[in-house]
Amino acid sequence: MYNFKNDYSEGAHPRILDKLIETNLIQQAGYGEDEYAKAAKSILKKKIANEQAVVYFLSGGTQTNLLVLSFLLRIHEAVISAKTGHISANETGAIEATGHKVITVETLDGKLTPKDITKTLKEHALAPHVVKPRIVYISNSTEIGTIYTLTELEALYVCCREHHLLLYLDGARLGHALMAENNDLTLKDIGNYADVFYIGGTKNGALLGEAVVFNKPELALDFDYAIKQKGALLAKGRVLSIQFLELFKDDLYFELAQKANSYAMRIAQVIKEKGHSFLTDSTTNQIFPILPKSVIETLSQKYQFYIWKEIDNDYAAIRLITSWATDEEQVASFMEAILKS
Amino acid sequence: MYNFKNDYSEGAHPRILDKLIETNLIQQAGYGEDEYAKAAKSILKKKIANEQAVVYFLSGGTQTNLLVLSFLLRIHEAVISAKTGHISANETGAIEATGHKVITVETLDGKLTPKDITKTLKEHALAPHVVKPRIVYISNSTEIGTIYTLTELEALYVCCREHHLLLYLDGARLGHALMAENNDLTLKDIGNYADVFYIGGTKNGALLGEAVVFNKPELALDFDYAIKQKGALLAKGRVLSIQFLELFKDDLYFELAQKANSYAMRIAQVIKEKGHSFLTDSTTNQIFPILPKSVIETLSQKYQFYIWKEIDNDYAAIRLITSWATDEEQVASFMEAILKS
Amino acid sequence: MYNFKNDYSEGAHPRILDKLIETNLIQQAGYGEDEYAKAAKSILKKKIANEQAVVYFLSGGTQTNLLVLSFLLRIHEAVISAKTGHISANETGAIEATGHKVITVETLDGKLTPKDITKTLKEHALAPHVVKPRIVYISNSTEIGTIYTLTELEALYVCCREHHLLLYLDGARLGHALMAENNDLTLKDIGNYADVFYIGGTKNGALLGEAVVFNKPELALDFDYAIKQKGALLAKGRVLSIQFLELFKDDLYFELAQKANSYAMRIAQVIKEKGHSFLTDSTTNQIFPILPKSVIETLSQKYQFYIWKEIDNDYAAIRLITSWATDEEQVASFMEAILKS
Amino acid sequence: MYNFKNDYSEGAHPRILDKLIETNLIQQAGYGEDEYAKAAKSILKKKIANEQAVVYFLSGGTQTNLLVLSFLLRIHEAVISAKTGHISANETGAIEATGHKVITVETLDGKLTPKDITKTLKEHALAPHVVKPRIVYISNSTEIGTIYTLTELEALYVCCREHHLLLYLDGARLGHALMAENNDLTLKDIGNYADVFYIGGTKNGALLGEAVVFNKPELALDFDYAIKQKGALLAKGRVLSIQFLELFKDDLYFELAQKANSYAMRIAQVIKEKGHSFLTDSTTNQIFPILPKSVIETLSQKYQFYIWKEIDNDYAAIRLITSWATDEEQVASFMEAILKS
Repeated sequence: MYNFKNDYSEGAHPRILDKLIETNLIQQAGYGEDEYAKAAKSILKKKIANEQAVVYFLSGGTQTNLLVLSFLLRIHEAVISAKTGHISANETGAIEATGHKVITVETLDGKLTPKDITKTLKEHALAPHVVKPRIVYISNSTEIGTIYTLTELEALYVCCREHHLLLYLDGARLGHALMAENNDLTLKDIGNYADVFYIGGTKNGALLGEAVVFNKPELALDFDYAIKQKGALLAKGRVLSIQFLELFKDDLYFELAQKANSYAMRIAQVIKEKGHSFLTDSTTNQIFPILPKSVIETLSQKYQFYIWKEIDNDYAAIRLITSWATDEEQVASFMEAILKS
Repeated sequence: MYNFKNDYSEGAHPRILDKLIETNLIQQAGYGEDEYAKAAKSILKKKIANEQAVVYFLSGGTQTNLLVLSFLLRIHEAVISAKTGHISANETGAIEATGHKVITVETLDGKLTPKDITKTLKEHALAPHVVKPRIVYISNSTEIGTIYTLTELEALYVCCREHHLLLYLDGARLGHALMAENNDLTLKDIGNYADVFYIGGTKNGALLGEAVVFNKPELALDFDYAIKQKGALLAKGRVLSIQFLELFKDDLYFELAQKANSYAMRIAQVIKEKGHSFLTDSTTNQIFPILPKSVIETLSQKYQFYIWKEIDNDYAAIRLITSWATDEEQVASFMEAILKS
Repeated sequence: MYNFKNDYSEGAHPRILDKLIETNLIQQAGYGEDEYAKAAKSILKKKIANEQAVVYFLSGGTQTNLLVLSFLLRIHEAVISAKTGHISANETGAIEATGHKVITVETLDGKLTPKDITKTLKEHALAPHVVKPRIVYISNSTEIGTIYTLTELEALYVCCREHHLLLYLDGARLGHALMAENNDLTLKDIGNYADVFYIGGTKNGALLGEAVVFNKPELALDFDYAIKQKGALLAKGRVLSIQFLELFKDDLYFELAQKANSYAMRIAQVIKEKGHSFLTDSTTNQIFPILPKSVIETLSQKYQFYIWKEIDNDYAAIRLITSWATDEEQVASFMEAILKS
Repeated sequence: MYNFKNDYSEGAHPRILDKLIETNLIQQAGYGEDEYAKAAKSILKKKIANEQAVVYFLSGGTQTNLLVLSFLLRIHEAVISAKTGHISANETGAIEATGHKVITVETLDGKLTPKDITKTLKEHALAPHVVKPRIVYISNSTEIGTIYTLTELEALYVCCREHHLLLYLDGARLGHALMAENNDLTLKDIGNYADVFYIGGTKNGALLGEAVVFNKPELALDFDYAIKQKGALLAKGRVLSIQFLELFKDDLYFELAQKANSYAMRIAQVIKEKGHSFLTDSTTNQIFPILPKSVIETLSQKYQFYIWKEIDNDYAAIRLITSWATDEEQVASFMEAILKS
């Protein structure tokens, strides 16, 4: 059975493993003080076009989210998220476990707007009987495959500035967002229009690893203490930095995301041609086609994927995810299976 | 400059990297549900001789400690540790950050005894104005290189049973403890005389990874939620399990620890022969010789190590650590430098 | 301006103050070990008809809620509440600050049903990526004045038993619920059909004070540690116990609630007679009439109350609260003002 | 049996109860917004000679300590305390429960010195593997009856400024400290040489209540959210403010403390005359005489007190506490019993 369930079913891009082997016995300082970290951070800061940015390498998305939010929030402050946001829906109360409420907003497309923010602020006016919103959390691409445009991100950032809020962008699948056909955002824009964000490695070529970027250096002061305290400081920090060095020393990171997207878009095209619709308007590597249950049943015999949502007695939405490691032949077979269905 | 500062200056044992490459593109379930995890757990349970044991793979020592302790302690309960214990001295308040006091006990050799425990309980009798001790935390080998004997471990475990306490053993350097010349403990003993313990991979051949073992399965119930909540659940859990599979499918883990110990013991022998004494009675891969400051100065020009403690105007203790990856020629040069000093 | 904003605008019932004076200089043990506490607990256990119940006296509702929930929940567990529930809407993230998510359910009448519970459980099935629901939180009377019937409470309790959930009832205004005209619940029923609940004193005659009752004694074990840890253990515990002794040694508590309800119901009757409707179907001391804004404007010149919710351009709902201390003449004047409007 | 165990065995000073009765039915805003609070704060700010100070009324010492510390500390920061400090020894891990380590220092007299601080900072230099000290916690009078002089407090404050530390003073028994014979501190000095402090009411005439004072207003910003979140915001805030208004509208607070001290000093004088020594050099209302066990035995038949510490086979130290409410005749009888022993 071939697996379209997620983008972490395989290991790392071969170039990364090669680099790990090549550097394996070179002694390095521990705890993120290795030379590869310096080099990788330097490259990233150039791509973001912000020499003042402060970069750290962490192991996973939930870890990064809980670290950034618990570090930046004071005890009475809260974070605003779309209800579909990863911190709300998929992290086992990780943020609440650090003491903070996640205020959720219902959205159609997984994205927050300035209107959502101002409405939420209005609902939290009765101080001190309610928490004080302080951070806005967004994901790009979102958990349902959609992306933010430059105009949207800028508007959100301006709204945050007006209301003394910080904007934090979860980029678990940032590569896929930036390589989407309809994308007009760059890493540099995200350096400008987010206070903190992270670049996801795990879902785009790395064994594990996320690079968190504080665009405002003053926000990062003492963050290394937090990393150690939450158990996120790897003794062999090189494991993370070498991977980012390899992914960003040329355009490997973006090529891999592009490949993942293209597989998904090819499948989506066939599904559209068959006349099926989609639950969300995704242009990235996660798609949510709505299919007849009989078709789903047939596909399930050869492919693994999540059944995302029942639509009615006859139809359900499924989730298909592709990655840099997806087998092109399997994509072709799957498309054929759709066409035949 | 050659580095004797720690046992995580290099990457992983080559066999591990080979295995990562060999398995790299085989699709696996995420989040620790991969086949390698099943195989590695099965091997470990056999070595511990406890089929009921529950095993999880985590990324680092601080992460493991904070997960186990925060999961097992209720809000008013505390952990007892030697003052030199890692959770007390080196984890940036990680345990307190989860809400629990670490009660510290002064020791000479980094080890806790039943007498330490009963004394601590007496000092915490004035309920409810004090915390309630519930877990005893020990390290083997300790942070200063010493090890527990079977008699000592058993006595501590019996004491814990009597007083309704759990015994948790931090095995960041468990391999080194079990391969020490004067050791009489086995993995099976630790399966019997600890409630929970972990087997350190990072400091003994792995890129990263610790295997936490709940000898009492009822204590592990729902622990997977905690792993996710604290940001410790890797999407590609295979990264951890493949390493433990390789380390334990034969005796690689123990061979590597044996090698690390032997380097340290060789250096120690030369230091003894030169008539110097030691701060602690270590038989493992961390040694703490007390040397004239002039000798330390000379050694510092070619080797990196920590100056651990000033003894008086003329002498200081330094810390030397060796590992499986330590260069045998560098050990020889260092020994020569000592002899010449 | 007369104040109908809340039921804590005045001090304590005079009998309570008299009792404080009468006992003032009698030496008592501190920290809740006073004789008045023993006597008051004994009376309460009789009224609940559960000699095994364990009772503690605390200072306020938020304090009680955060203590009970943080004490009973393990780190990965969560509480289910109506979105209007006090712990969700009015406690500044107090529960999240202890590390736990509050899962909210939209309701029309502020009350939870077994259907709400089973639906929530279904939405939290994807372990370990979501929190584990463990406690159901309800208020009686609710934050919008409605009450639970015996049938409803029993059904909820049975549902909780089936799904290994605890049922916790917030009785900040329990007296008002039990004295409502349409109530068929007794303290004894609540002893049977809740695992833990509290009897609110602050809003019904006391200066401050809530009595938390663990109907299952095993749940209360060590709760005294938690009280101390969260800063809720008064040195002079007598302040709380004397008040509950006075409120429950006869039926003062119920008489006061009855009085509060009757004032609200009289006002409601007049409002109904004038042809106005209500936002919620309250039979207790909080009512939410929907009035023309012009009428609200006029009333505002002589009375204080909250404007609860805008209905449309011409109408808004206001909240009126009465208490045992409400001035009967002011009630009469207010009714007259309504009639004239 | 007469009780010298503590200074909270009785209720409140009669003038306070009279004031509660007198104001009982006057409607007031809830949650600390009452007129009495405004008046009491105004008086306190005058006594501290700092119009910019921000004052809040809370219910108890542990509550105040955990609120102030958890509000001011960031997640990686810690508080330094004498080992005998209340937050270290007597609060059931309340500070750790909010996520912060209490770094303890061994002292002879319960007081911290600049030398203690700089030594502690040196021991916490290995960032980020250790917590970052940020607040210095002291008590005046201390838990063992000693007091700080102006010179000592000023030196500590200067040391804190140098090292970017905040100085927080726990004044659970501040009245007793300021009224000690050998005291040279004033409320105004504490306004100058502490960043935050609290004035204890519970142990000096109030039913319950502590007044926390932020000498630097910027530190207090948003503190009201924290009060609500930790369950410390009383609906009827008047209960606290009326008591402080009565205690400070003239010199009642100081008269009561003076009375408590004088009882203790009279007893201490007799004990000295009998040739006995003391465990600590107390000039306040807590004394720790070292007496023959036979004498302790005899006294125990008519008086209650704590046996504080065994000295040897024949001697033990006891703790005697007096208060404003201590019965003068009982003091005389006790003195007589000592003289006869």
